[in-house]
This record gives sequence, structure tokens and C-alpha cells, in this order.
Amino acid sequence: MNSFGRMFRISIFGESHGIQIGVVIDGCPPGIALSEDDLKNDFARRRAGGRGTTPRIEPDLPSIVSGVFRGKTTGAPLSIVFENTNIKSDDYDNLWDQPRPGHADYTARQKYGGFNDPRGGGHFSGRITLGIVAAGVVAKKILGSVTVAATLVEAGGSKNIASAVEEAIESKDSIGGLIECVCSNMPVRLGEPFFDSAEALIAHMIFAVPATRGIEFGSGFAAAAMKGSEHNDCITDGDGKTATNHASGINGGITNGNDIVFRVAIKPTSSIGLPQETYNFKEKAVSALLIEGRHDVCIAIRIPVVIECAAAIALADLMLCEGRYQ
Amino acid sequence: MNSFGRMFRISIFGESHGIQIGVVIDGCPPGIALSEDDLKNDFARRRAGGRGTTPRIEPDLPSIVSGVFRGKTTGAPLSIVFENTNIKSDDYDNLWDQPRPGHADYTARQKYGGFNDPRGGGHFSGRITLGIVAAGVVAKKILGSVTVAATLVEAGGSKNIASAVEEAIESKDSIGGLIECVCSNMPVRLGEPFFDSAEALIAHMIFAVPATRGIEFGSGFAAAAMKGSEHNDCITDGDGKTATNHASGINGGITNGNDIVFRVAIKPTSSIGLPQETYNFKEKAVSALLIEGRHDVCIAIRIPVVIECAAAIALADLMLCEGRYQ
Amino acid sequence: MNSFGRMFRISIFGESHGIQIGVVIDGCPPGIALSEDDLKNDFARRRAGGRGTTPRIEPDLPSIVSGVFRGKTTGAPLSIVFENTNIKSDDYDNLWDQPRPGHADYTARQKYGGFNDPRGGGHFSGRITLGIVAAGVVAKKILGSVTVAATLVEAGGSKNIASAVEEAIESKDSIGGLIECVCSNMPVRLGEPFFDSAEALIAHMIFAVPATRGIEFGSGFAAAAMKGSEHNDCITDGDGKTATNHASGINGGITNGNDIVFRVAIKPTSSIGLPQETYNFKEKAVSALLIEGRHDVCIAIRIPVVIECAAAIALADLMLCEGRYQ
Amino acid sequence: MNSFGRMFRISIFGESHGIQIGVVIDGCPPGIALSEDDLKNDFARRRAGGRGTTPRIEPDLPSIVSGVFRGKTTGAPLSIVFENTNIKSDDYDNLWDQPRPGHADYTARQKYGGFNDPRGGGHFSGRITLGIVAAGVVAKKILGSVTVAATLVEAGGSKNIASAVEEAIESKDSIGGLIECVCSNMPVRLGEPFFDSAEALIAHMIFAVPATRGIEFGSGFAAAAMKGSEHNDCITDGDGKTATNHASGINGGITNGNDIVFRVAIKPTSSIGLPQETYNFKEKAVSALLIEGRHDVCIAIRIPVVIECAAAIALADLMLCEGRYQ
Repeated sequence: MNSFGRMFRISIFGESHGIQIGVVIDGCPPGIALSEDDLKNDFARRRAGGRGTTPRIEPDLPSIVSGVFRGKTTGAPLSIVFENTNIKSDDYDNLWDQPRPGHADYTARQKYGGFNDPRGGGHFSGRITLGIVAAGVVAKKILGSVTVAATLVEAGGSKNIASAVEEAIESKDSIGGLIECVCSNMPVRLGEPFFDSAEALIAHMIFAVPATRGIEFGSGFAAAAMKGSEHNDCITDGDGKTATNHASGINGGITNGNDIVFRVAIKPTSSIGLPQETYNFKEKAVSALLIEGRHDVCIAIRIPVVIECAAAIALADLMLCEGRYQ
Repeated sequence: MNSFGRMFRISIFGESHGIQIGVVIDGCPPGIALSEDDLKNDFARRRAGGRGTTPRIEPDLPSIVSGVFRGKTTGAPLSIVFENTNIKSDDYDNLWDQPRPGHADYTARQKYGGFNDPRGGGHFSGRITLGIVAAGVVAKKILGSVTVAATLVEAGGSKNIASAVEEAIESKDSIGGLIECVCSNMPVRLGEPFFDSAEALIAHMIFAVPATRGIEFGSGFAAAAMKGSEHNDCITDGDGKTATNHASGINGGITNGNDIVFRVAIKPTSSIGLPQETYNFKEKAVSALLIEGRHDVCIAIRIPVVIECAAAIALADLMLCEGRYQ
Repeated sequence: MNSFGRMFRISIFGESHGIQIGVVIDGCPPGIALSEDDLKNDFARRRAGGRGTTPRIEPDLPSIVSGVFRGKTTGAPLSIVFENTNIKSDDYDNLWDQPRPGHADYTARQKYGGFNDPRGGGHFSGRITLGIVAAGVVAKKILGSVTVAATLVEAGGSKNIASAVEEAIESKDSIGGLIECVCSNMPVRLGEPFFDSAEALIAHMIFAVPATRGIEFGSGFAAAAMKGSEHNDCITDGDGKTATNHASGINGGITNGNDIVFRVAIKPTSSIGLPQETYNFKEKAVSALLIEGRHDVCIAIRIPVVIECAAAIALADLMLCEGRYQ
Repeated sequence: MNSFGRMFRISIFGESHGIQIGVVIDGCPPGIALSEDDLKNDFARRRAGGRGTTPRIEPDLPSIVSGVFRGKTTGAPLSIVFENTNIKSDDYDNLWDQPRPGHADYTARQKYGGFNDPRGGGHFSGRITLGIVAAGVVAKKILGSVTVAATLVEAGGSKNIASAVEEAIESKDSIGGLIECVCSNMPVRLGEPFFDSAEALIAHMIFAVPATRGIEFGSGFAAAAMKGSEHNDCITDGDGKTATNHASGINGGITNGNDIVFRVAIKPTSSIGLPQETYNFKEKAVSALLIEGRHDVCIAIRIPVVIECAAAIALADLMLCEGRYQ
């Protein structure tokens, strides 16, 4: 379903070119100061604008339409909505005939019997992640002293992100990226063995972010090639601090107080400026498709804040499940 | 919580040295032939015995104690339990004082206020994954023609698994491993955009398997260094088959009919035969710890079947949510 | 939490005097014709206007802001929102000092630490049931040939509802009512033994409707005084039709194809035109309170449609869980 | 599904004549003293034995097979199981042909395609409520000073329960009963507006108990005939105590600290000693059925402890959701 969380539950809705998109946040504790201004910073980070991002720039003006009274959360469901303003729908008329490679055009048509809204990707649009960001801003407030920070550490395989982007722009292609996220000042005790391990809930939320191809915690895939004597983290004090942090602050699914560090692989933007071969349902044959309009060359540039917010949502849920906030 | 699934829900319970461990499976459709014999093969795969695995070998005899009548599932909750027989508990007396690096000793004590069962890792034991394997065997029957197959493709960074294991045995150390899982004959339509994407649910289940450090789908972390023109999968026919499969059979969270391929990084076994430094709560100082007894040198050898079953559970849930089986 | 349902999940939000109230509906199958017009009839039934109902009459104009494209549901989350127009907030300034008897003023203050929105009852307002009605209209479409019809059968203990209402208006008091709901053309098979019995899910939804004091199915409370030979329903044909229907179409939690019939007791409106004694937190003593403004004399007049929609929501969820619609 | 609860989640399994029945309890806080002895009292209350109860008397010996270590709960899933000993299965051979009136024979066959276990009602047996009682005993410990007490207040419409039972025995018939349950020393703040109101969760659990026909809180169905000036409870002090308790200690879905009082209507036992007309699928006609064996004449005698435990489970979940215990 389009909701996540046991004690801090978010539900997102909306389509790229629909009337309103938004998020309903259930389980937010009362008394937290919250206004539309609080969303500005993370929204700016997510917004297009820099080199390599789409020229479709939405003002993204959020309205908090329920759950806040006199500037503070009330404990009732919190709803934050966004009107869509920059809607240009006629670009998408041929999607029914020739699904774009890498996009959900084909799967959406199959799943929903052709009733899905195809305009701008409809409900599959990355624009819907606005709701995740809004909920993440609220989640971070619940986290208190815990900080969550995600940054783009590589694009197109290069640490020199700017030049990789320029190169992609020139070649009319797109590139992927690698995001690292660090959660600091973590409390001990969050998460549970097996199904609701801290990793499982964070990974669940991260794979809710479109374009994610992989996640690794701590030593991650390198751990597969390590020895136990290297990988094990020596506990150095009574608070559980460890000398190394290969375990990413989690043992047996439960946080141990050290930082949670994870990396996320983001695929290259699916829409590119080059012609691509793909099946044409009308012609019943593979033919070339050129996607009109301009798009993000490296969507990974805009995703760190979404990853950060997704992680914050999972952590807020874990924290409220542990009964910490109230 | 210790349950997973919306339409196919499993709940596991038990401790390494407790009386009984098991799994309750809710939502299994009626009329599926099932007996204890069906579990034998996957249990044998999970069981210790080969080089590099622990000498604690349990018979692992399952009893189906509810939900089956005259050899077929009834539609009522299915329970499969295992008695523990090979219990040797006195090895674990000093765990309270000096938590083992890489294990959940410290986090369990903090989370449960010292009330957790420490014998053999208690509820954190890998032995509890027997329930996941049992549920996976049932899940695979629900999947029908869909096949799920996981194999160990590397250990200790080497494709020559046998020699890597021998080396680790000699050095009294442990090694990690890399597992690849392929889901074939997939139907189109499973999964949903965002929170219940096919990747999100599979990743959730995979991170429920102890020792998992990372998961990547399709091109995975390599996608971060790819170009869109390389990564996009060209659709080649009206059934959605693609020329490449970088997307791992999933677009927009929904299966497209191509194989789901994912890789899982497994950390080295935490228990090793070498002395390790770690904090001693009694002495209030770091001191050396030598873990007695013999353990798996490469737990990754025994995990492919668990990964396979975990994936099958997620897919069965997705399939029943889609209303396919009934 | 403020959501209900496993396969058809609704989340409501909003406050009586807030900017927007609404509902997000997740799991609605695609391809169902839906427009704002479809909501008119049930909204009119819920709306105030007749004798004994509040003079606050809202236009209740719904906007479907997501999940519908070209007049049909898309399968993506469906959101229906309402703007509040008739807001008169200064009536409620003294609520903090003297909680109104029968209202949630006291409990809301305790639960939310005084941060709840008190204007018009805030999130506790009966106005929030607009979202339940909107979701119910959608649910009824999913139900297909199943019909759900609720009517007020008694008010103030009398079957002559009009005269009971007039009497209450004259005495500046309020009265309760009895609602009967009949679900016809029921399929066999909905519901499960124990926790998700058809009765349990319907009752859960009905007690989500403010002012509900009781629910009984079939012979209901009279069954407590009956003999088995009277109460048992004789099955008369191979489709499971029964001669009597004391069981309300449900055996062992599962629908048997006969009508589900249940009755709901609605308490008298809490706000009355007479002075009432209650505790004054400022004066630290019991004192008389006169609630200003005019209110529904018999809220039960407006509730049948809400009960009907609540039941339809539970049935739609049961039906989708059974995999019937897709 | 066969589970209930958000923070205190129970899953029951088993069949009347199966190998093992039981309950898995997830979310039980650690450190609670628990042994099989704690279950004795409530099990004795539930057990048959007195006049009007079935001669099938099971020893009902529970085994706590996980989640307890050194006499205290560990925080890991708690499993309590029961072996079935008194199994006499040949009584039930003709159920397939002629479903018993009032039982789930017909609905189970339809829902599960004839694969359900029919012996003794299979999973529909009242015997499965042993798991609810076991979980209720644990729940009551979580409730601390809150007490929950249910008693049979009427049988067959009479307050003289003994004579009503004798009369039913003589006439080979069965009778229903009325149970009242009082929850005292309640904390303020449990429950939420709308879907997770205290009434909704309690009612959900109560309708999970087989034979329940209705539930009413506080003034209940009488409220439908009351005036607001009678029904409203005057708050008399700063702790929220009220002069009357028509609201059953709940306003707006949230507990107000006064007792929760509810009544439950229990239908007459479906199995009676008299011949009953019902459809015979083999003969394709209605014919007389005489149910062999002896059964409870008034199952309501044995149900108060189940109701009490069901309520305790709902309250424990509400309390843990409110973060009170940890």
C-alpha cells in the first residue's frame, strides 16, 4: 500500500500533473513547532535548478492543512499538500504506444489495466517524493538530537561530480550516483531482531525512493570479502562505542549507539536525450524512441535529501515504537 | 514486531536453547499438498555439516502441528515447530560480562534490560531462521511456476570458495560471502509504487536474515557509475521482455516479467577462534576475549537457502496481495 | 492510528475549523467511474438542514484531487478533500477551562497535552466523518451488487421520530437514536475466524463513528435470552440460504450469503441547550455550563449514511482481501 | 488474518483435534514474571466441568515454549502451546453432508474449498480461545493496576442462572447469556479518535470471541432512548471523575479514567440435543439432523474469562501504543 510505519505512519498521494499531491502523517506527537517555513530548506535541496537538473522548476509551496494549531502539532493527523502549477501534459501522448525504457510506463499499464494517469509519470513521478521530504522534515524533529545527513559522493563513477555532469549534458546522456547517509547521536535500543531490524526498516523506506538500485550498511559489500577478525567491531567503553564501525551501529537488528552509515546506489535518470530502441505496441515492433523535453541529467543530485528524509522517517517510527518520545 | 506480510504473514518465535522454535504462517491458501517431507531438502541445505560449518548439528525435525489436514493445507494458520535437542548451555556464562564483538550481546542486554535469554544467542540465534526456511518452503508452493534460486558465488572475496574456506579454518578466522538470487518465470504486476515496491518488500525480508550487510538489484551499485544509455533496458516484445535486465525485472516498484536478480553481502561469522579485544563490563576495561567452542567459519555457506526462502516469502505476499492465487 | 483496512485502506485527516479535511483511499481498484457528482447523494443525506439538525450548513463540496484520470480511478491513492468555509471560531474560547460533558474536551487535552485544536471539537468533530462518507461511496462501488442500507428506526425511544425531535427541540434537550443497517446480496466467504471475523471488522468501523454506544448483529442482545432451538438458522438450500437469520448472515466469522443485519445505538447529542454542571478547571469547582450556539438535537438523524458507509468500507476491505474484485 | 494488535500482537493457531494449539505473543515487555502456574486460574475458569458444560474435559496443560528465561519474559516472542489429548474424531464424519445449524460447517467449506479440518470444528472450535486466555493472562500483567473483570449476569434471559441451566438441560436445548465486563483503575489517554478508538479495539477483540452477538458500552442501547441531559456525565473533579458513567469511561475514543463497562450478548450454544432441520447436501433436501455427543448447554458460562482476556489484550495494546509501560 502507499503507507509506511507502525507508530509514525505516512501515506502519500498525488500525480505529477494532478491537482494536488501530498502526505498524511499519522502518529506525530503533539507540541512540535511546525510551519511551512520549516520545509523550505529541504525543499530547496530537492528542487531542480542547478546544472544537470530539469528545467521544470515548481515553486513547491507546501500548505499544512491539518494537524497544526497555533504553530504546533496537535497530535491529530498532519497533512501537508502541494498544488501543481507547472503542468504541461501534451508531451506524454504517445506513452501508451511506446513505453519508455527504464520507466514504469509498461508495468503501470499492465498493473492498472491502462487506467493509470500517464501524464508526467502520474503517481510514479519523482515529484511524489515531495511528500516523503515533507514527512522527513517532521520526522527529523521527532528525532531530537539524532542527526541524519545524506550527500552525493559520486556521480557517473567519479568523485568529481561537476565534471561528470557536464560530460553527461554534452553527450545528451544521463548518469547515476552514489549517496552516503550518516545517522549520528543514535540512541541504543532501536529496532528488533529479524523482520523489524533497523536495517530492514531503513532499507524498506530507501527502496521506496524511485531509482534506488542498492543499499549497503557499514562495510557493506566489502564485508563479503572480509575476515571476521577485520570486520568485528571492538567495543571500547560501557556505552557501547566501538573502535571501528563495520556494523553500521547495528547488531542483531538493534542500534548500538554508534553511527548508522549506509550507501545507496542511484541509477542514471531513465529519460535521456538520445534515441533509444524499445517496443512499439502500435507497430508491434521495436523502433527508436526520442523522449522530448528536457530532464534531469543526474537525478542523484536531487535525491540525497529524499534519502535523508526516508531514513529519518524509518528512524522516527523505530523511536516511537520504542516509546522514547512520549 | 516478529511478523512480516500483509496477506501471507509469518511470525517466528523461539530461542537457540529453548524448548521449541517455530513459525506460524497465516494466509496460506487451502488445498496445497504439504508434509514434513517437503521441508527436508531445504533443511538439509541450511544444516551444518560441510567444511567450514559448525559441528553443532541438529536433526531439525519439523512437525506441522496445525493447518494441515489429510496432507493438504486447510486455510487455517499453519504452524511448523522444531524441538531443540542439542543444547549445551554452559558455554555462555560469561556473556553478561563481556559482550562478543559482532554479536547482539550488548544491544540485547540494553534493549531488554538484561532479561534476554543469552544461551546460544537466544532469540538472536541464526537457528531461528529455521522458521523462515519452513515458511519459504510453503511460499515456494504458492509461487507456482515462479522459481527462486540463491547460490553462494563468492566467499572471502574469492570465487574459489573451497580454498577460501580452508584458509579461514587454518587461520582460525572467519570469512564473509556473496550470494546471488534469481527469481524466474515472474508474472508482471507484482509490487506497488513507493512503500510496497517489489524491491522494498524483498529487501525488508532479506535484512531480516542475520548477517546481511547489503542488497543490490540488477546492475546494483554498478548502476551508480553507469550512463542511462547503458542502463536502460530495451523492451523487445509485447510481453515486456527486455534485451538487458539492469532493472532486475522491476520498474516503478512493479515486476515487468523479467527475472528478479539480486545479490546479498553476508558478513563474516562473528564468532572466530582468535582472541579479540572488547569491553569487559565487570572489569570496566577492554580485555581479550576468546570465544570457546567451534562455530561456522563461513556462515554464508548455509545462508543461500535462507535468502531464497526470504525472497519467496516476500514474493508470495506480493502475489497474494495481487489476488493471483485464489 | 487514523487509518483502517488491509487491502482497502482509508486515512482521514482534518479539523472542524481547519483549512482542509479529507480522506486518502489506498487500494481502490482501477477503472471505477468516479466523479464529485457521485458523492452528492450521500453528502446530502449526511448534511444538516432538517428539523433537529444544526443550522451550521456547509456546502461540503468535495474535490477529488488524486487517483482519478479521465473519470475513472487509476489504482493510485485516491484523495478526496473538502475546504471548510463556515468557520466561526470564537465560540470555543472557554473550552480549556470547562470541558463540555459528553465531549472529548477533557480527554483530548489530557492525551495531547493541551496542544489539540479545540475549535469546533477539532479533529474530534463529527465533520471529519465526511471522509468516511466519501470513502464509503467509493467502497459501495467496489461492492458491486452488494447493497448496504442504513435507516434511523427510532429516536428518543420512539418510532415516531418527528414528534420525538419536536419534543426535544422544545425542551432544549437532545435525544439518541437507533439505526438499522442491512447488507444484501452478500457473497459467501468474506471474513475469517477470530480476529478478522466479519463482525469484528464491521464493529471496528462502526465504533469509529462518533456517538456509537453499541452494536448488535442479527438477534443481537435478544440472543442472550434465547434457546438454541429458536436461535439456530435452518439452512434451506444448497446456496446456504436460511429460514431465519438470527446469525445475521455470518457463521464462524464468515459470511454465509444471507443478509448481514445489524443495529447501532447512537447516544444523544452531547451539546444541549440546557445548563449542565461540570468541572471548571479555572475555578477548581463544579459549576454550571451553558453551551452557546445551536446544535443538532438528534445527531442520529444524520448518522445512518455514515454507518452505511462505514459498513461498506469494512465489506470492501473484506472483499478485496478475499481477492474477489480483481 | 489470525493476528491482532499493533504493539502487543497475538497470533493464534490450532485445531480442535489437531496436534497442538497455541498462541504467539509479540511485543510483550521484558522482565515480567511468568510461569505456567499463572495460567491455572483463568484456565480453570474457562474449563468445562460444572452443570451445563461439556463432558469433554481437557487437562489444558500449557507449556511456555519461548520468550521466558529464568521465570521472566525476555522481550522476545512468547509462545504458549497446548497439546490436545482428548481427541475423539469419528463423531464428525457426516459434517460434510449436512452442515450443523449455527456452526461454521457451511461457511468453512465454502471459504476453504472443502479443505478445512472438520473434526470438532477444526480451527473454528471454541477450544482455540485457549490461546486468547493465555495471551490475556500476559496482558493483565502488562496492565498493572488496571483490573478487568467479566461475569455472567444472565442466562437464558434469567438472573437465576442455575435454574435456567437446569431447565435447558432437561429440555435438551441450549441457552444464551449476558456478560458484563468492568475495567477499573483506568488511566486517562488510551485510544484514539475514529478508527482506533478504545471502543473500536475492544469491540474488535470481543467479536473475535465465537458466539458474540452484540456489545454495548456504558448506557449502550438504552442511550438510544435517552436525553442528552440524562446521558451526559458531569465531570466532578480535576482527575476527570464523573458523577455518572454513561460514556463507559471513554470520550472521543479516548479513556477518561472512569471505569470501562461493557456488556456482551452470547448466543445459545449451537449444538443441542434436539433434532434440527437443515439442508442435506447429499440428499439435496432439508432433513432432520441429530447432533451426537454431549455439549455445553450454556457456553456463556465458560466465556466470561475469554471476554475478560480479550478486553485485556485490547487494553494492553492500547497501553503499549501510548508508550506507558516501557
